[in-house]
Amino acid sequence: MAARWRGTRALLLDVSGVLYDSGDGGGAPIAGSAEAVRKIKASGLKLRFCTNETQTTREKFVQKLRGFGFDISVAEVTAPAPAACRVLRERSLRPHLLVHDDVMPEFAEIDKTNPNCVVIGDAADNFTYANLNEAFRVLIGLENPVLISLGKGRYYKETDGLKLDVGAYMKALEYACDIQAEIVGKPAKMFFESALAELGVQPQEAVMVGDDIVSDVGGAQRCGMRAVQVRTGKYRPADENHPQVKPDAYVDNLAAAVDLILQEL
Amino acid sequence: MAARWRGTRALLLDVSGVLYDSGDGGGAPIAGSAEAVRKIKASGLKLRFCTNETQTTREKFVQKLRGFGFDISVAEVTAPAPAACRVLRERSLRPHLLVHDDVMPEFAEIDKTNPNCVVIGDAADNFTYANLNEAFRVLIGLENPVLISLGKGRYYKETDGLKLDVGAYMKALEYACDIQAEIVGKPAKMFFESALAELGVQPQEAVMVGDDIVSDVGGAQRCGMRAVQVRTGKYRPADENHPQVKPDAYVDNLAAAVDLILQEL
Repeated sequence: MAARWRGTRALLLDVSGVLYDSGDGGGAPIAGSAEAVRKIKASGLKLRFCTNETQTTREKFVQKLRGFGFDISVAEVTAPAPAACRVLRERSLRPHLLVHDDVMPEFAEIDKTNPNCVVIGDAADNFTYANLNEAFRVLIGLENPVLISLGKGRYYKETDGLKLDVGAYMKALEYACDIQAEIVGKPAKMFFESALAELGVQPQEAVMVGDDIVSDVGGAQRCGMRAVQVRTGKYRPADENHPQVKPDAYVDNLAAAVDLILQEL
Repeated sequence: MAARWRGTRALLLDVSGVLYDSGDGGGAPIAGSAEAVRKIKASGLKLRFCTNETQTTREKFVQKLRGFGFDISVAEVTAPAPAACRVLRERSLRPHLLVHDDVMPEFAEIDKTNPNCVVIGDAADNFTYANLNEAFRVLIGLENPVLISLGKGRYYKETDGLKLDVGAYMKALEYACDIQAEIVGKPAKMFFESALAELGVQPQEAVMVGDDIVSDVGGAQRCGMRAVQVRTGKYRPADENHPQVKPDAYVDNLAAAVDLILQEL
């Protein structure tokens, strides 16, 4: 297994569950992760943060992470909302938005009049019956209904318990309208490819580090990348017996992942 | 095509869209339907009302229909909530309920402490993010998660527009928990069979009359019944080109269905 990481020119890092744990008062950094990010930058490897976070703007997200001591800037973050804005512009789509209030500013420049598609994100308390009906009526009224989903997560953990993620509501609209959503975010191939393009590297030159066996590890591997699963965040021991996905390595945390990869370069 | 209805001993009637249209102030009867119900009863045919209504108790539902001039009693109605109660008792299941407030009394006698399953109905405004999360947490916390869904409708029409039906939220929970719901209500075979058992007739002796090509017509036919689609309620001309389901007859309304069947007996 020696030289497994040879040829690595770039790392893609998931954020929630890898850099920090979300929760009360914005959460808390994971021990060693801030130092690990500094090590990556000092090593000369290219670096990109690849997140499915859609409850906030990149600006506020980065501000929080900097508060935790991370060396990170907005320009280094690949996130679903700005990726969706590119798709909307390219295809002249005018969205009806069912998203979190705090991510709305990402769509400020987008024409939202007379909607011809729906964009759904992790809207949390905005997932009321009235709001879901409104999104449904837009879709069912379109000749070619387009539903863009910012990720397709099932659920996530917060300090007050498990919460349904955008994927559950995406499925509700898919079923009601008899359509298939287009995913913008992990594990969509296009999302990883856009992060690789921003770095200017090939898939086989990049390693993804994440806590989600399906979204992070499986998604990156399907793109031709190598992928490491950290045993932090939403990692569960059962992940190590996943029937379809097998990471290139398991490590205890980001610090261990960085040490592992750097020592082999 | 003569004698198509020979051997008919019983009629099963869908209610919403066949007897009446729902809407403002409880809706309005469909012309000729009250007289048609009287004709069935006078003919000696057995009769059962087979509905997926879960926004009210059978008592209140029947009261409304009697107000519209229908000869109908609670004992003649097959509905998902009481059918679910039978399932819960038979299997010693204690439900967490995510249903409409007005259908709660149907579950009054059921033990709901320390839930070991979730029952979901057309909860309408009770489909908040908080309530769906609560149902999700019950399911995900169970070793063998059991989700019972009162029907699996996609949506329905009210005077103020289309509304998402229970099926959409059922799909959300199925996806989040990676499980399959058990349907109690049309088009589930067991639901039609329980209506037939209450009438004491065989499937080939019964005809279903409904406005829903999939739930009413397709469901009844899969049970071995004949089925007529009325061109009232949620009927749409496109139904006549349905790729899978072909009714034994189309008629303009319930009155026409009853005349058609009675004249051939």
